[in-house]
Amino acid sequence: MFRPAYLDWNATTPLDPAVRDAMLPWLGERFGNASSRHEYGRQARAAIDEARARVAAAVGAHPTEVIFTSGGSEANNLFVKGAAALLKPATVAVSAIEHPCVREPARQLRRQGWSFQEIAVDAEGVVAGPAWRAALDARPALISVMLANNETGVLQDIPRLAEEARPTRAWFHTDAVQALGKLPVDFRALGVHALSLSAHKVGGPLGAGALVLDKRVELAPLVAGGGQERNLRSGTENVAAIVGFGVACERAAGRVADEAPRLRRLREVVEAGVVALGARVFSMGAERLPNTVFFALEGLDGETLVGKLDRAGHAVASGSACSSANPEPSHTLLAMGVEPTVARGAVRVSLGRDTTAADVDAFLATLGVLAAELRQMTALAV
Amino acid sequence: MFRPAYLDWNATTPLDPAVRDAMLPWLGERFGNASSRHEYGRQARAAIDEARARVAAAVGAHPTEVIFTSGGSEANNLFVKGAAALLKPATVAVSAIEHPCVREPARQLRRQGWSFQEIAVDAEGVVAGPAWRAALDARPALISVMLANNETGVLQDIPRLAEEARPTRAWFHTDAVQALGKLPVDFRALGVHALSLSAHKVGGPLGAGALVLDKRVELAPLVAGGGQERNLRSGTENVAAIVGFGVACERAAGRVADEAPRLRRLREVVEAGVVALGARVFSMGAERLPNTVFFALEGLDGETLVGKLDRAGHAVASGSACSSANPEPSHTLLAMGVEPTVARGAVRVSLGRDTTAADVDAFLATLGVLAAELRQMTALAV
Repeated sequence: MFRPAYLDWNATTPLDPAVRDAMLPWLGERFGNASSRHEYGRQARAAIDEARARVAAAVGAHPTEVIFTSGGSEANNLFVKGAAALLKPATVAVSAIEHPCVREPARQLRRQGWSFQEIAVDAEGVVAGPAWRAALDARPALISVMLANNETGVLQDIPRLAEEARPTRAWFHTDAVQALGKLPVDFRALGVHALSLSAHKVGGPLGAGALVLDKRVELAPLVAGGGQERNLRSGTENVAAIVGFGVACERAAGRVADEAPRLRRLREVVEAGVVALGARVFSMGAERLPNTVFFALEGLDGETLVGKLDRAGHAVASGSACSSANPEPSHTLLAMGVEPTVARGAVRVSLGRDTTAADVDAFLATLGVLAAELRQMTALAV
Repeated sequence: MFRPAYLDWNATTPLDPAVRDAMLPWLGERFGNASSRHEYGRQARAAIDEARARVAAAVGAHPTEVIFTSGGSEANNLFVKGAAALLKPATVAVSAIEHPCVREPARQLRRQGWSFQEIAVDAEGVVAGPAWRAALDARPALISVMLANNETGVLQDIPRLAEEARPTRAWFHTDAVQALGKLPVDFRALGVHALSLSAHKVGGPLGAGALVLDKRVELAPLVAGGGQERNLRSGTENVAAIVGFGVACERAAGRVADEAPRLRRLREVVEAGVVALGARVFSMGAERLPNTVFFALEGLDGETLVGKLDRAGHAVASGSACSSANPEPSHTLLAMGVEPTVARGAVRVSLGRDTTAADVDAFLATLGVLAAELRQMTALAV
């Protein structure tokens, strides 16, 4: 089997072998429904409780604040739709660079009479200045600003934004899906009312995520029924995935102090390399995730480059892989004022725990060769 | 580890070892995000396509009619809320014995101006007669009647009900979660517009389900964002669970012709045994699932009996295990007109592919001993 070097850790991560080991019994003889009142059910319930404590501890929350969902998209939708359903229609304000799973449900609130406001970002992709103050002046009832952007890796100063938003009495949510495992994430220090997490971005499995929620926020469930997750998310719990999520959170949180500086050093090598090839690195002047480089080489199409890199053994992304087949240029870059022609050239390299200096060097060498070839072809075609 | 004999297959099923084998590569080196446009992503996408074809084939549907969800509860909520969101408020009619994950979202539509109508069932738990005709006379826009009840195992004559409902032009949905793998299920023969399935009820994993949906029905998504599942269910696909769901459906559908008669014979042994102990078997006069016996022994509390059976090595259910800690008597039995004192005695035995004649004999022997003990204690206490 052909296995390119994986440099797309913001899209998803390989399952951490220790997480897999923790999950396997729950795909074997420990198969009970956690609602069953016999031995199989009690085992499952105890495992979920333990996982809940692990996820909570990883982000400095209380276990009763953790609502398990099927993933980050569901957690984001649950906050936006669930909170709005129990409020009188008002204004929902979300940053212009949110993931579609925050932006779309927020936009759809217009059907229920809400006003939808996008908070513009500056050229580096940061929420700040007059756009932010104008958003607060509109007295939103719900605000969502992501902690780390999936494409550029840009970080927002959430503690400051949440503090400044306090007088509006809005419920403040942050999508921390890309931050967890790459930075320390602390629910109290962030000062938010709600925070979304995803297991598969931190070495955990697909199929588990969480909304960490301040008890003061009332939510209507998206999935109603059996009453699981304090009636906020019905459906038989995915025990194996939840167990894996707990272990992944614990391991990711425990590793971040050592791993972040290591990734940052590798990222600097990637950045120096692509800049030497003439690339523009997006958001280079802003605080960013230690593992993410989003760049464009002038005149070269990102999709084409990603396809050639893949065949040459380097798996990287063009737009955001979480969004399905979508040939539009990156919404994040357009919001930053990047011209569509430049945005179409965007390539994202995101590093992770298995990435080595050799992977990075090999990638840069191949990129140099491919860029030269493509430029030659482009020159010939003109 | 203490492992009671598992007689609670309607709550959940052990993962079929062949399903587990099919899933493991997707929890290992095949970890890609199906939206990624590199080798890892293409592998995941191809696996999802293959699973979609398997699920569709198992229920006689077209692959493009299958919308993957995180499970049966989400599929039921997606139909009820998703269809209602794009219709003018009208009447939603659901049977009085639906699972809470149909009944609750239907009831919640009242917040959006809908009228909620419960269709009464007869003493055997069957939708028929004047209550059904009255429901049709109310000209509902949405109807949901389950194919097989999770507690009694009662089957509804869905082809006839769907045919009779046609003049109302309602979208007709059936929750087929408990029927799949125990009976042949055919989307076209049922004549419905939508049908819900769950992987973990048929030897598949927790974390996958599907709504099979006629293309004429327009739905709003519950989870909006990246645009997966034809924009009807965003979120990174749970590849391993979906792959397992596909294999489980194929195996369950292939096995049903042999397995249903075998289970029915075991069920008859259970029924004869509990009747000999003086039990009342609910819905005994109706068409039922071949694997399910729901009964009560006069004067004995179901919860107490289930606890004692568990400690004696037989895992069975009292109420519906899918509903979380809920000490109320079975909603299904109350809807059938069973007195609450009798309903509190209810015990469900549900059999599956690993159940043997020896399991059934041992269960009946233990039940006889425990019932005698409990009756003696009750007699002494009076």
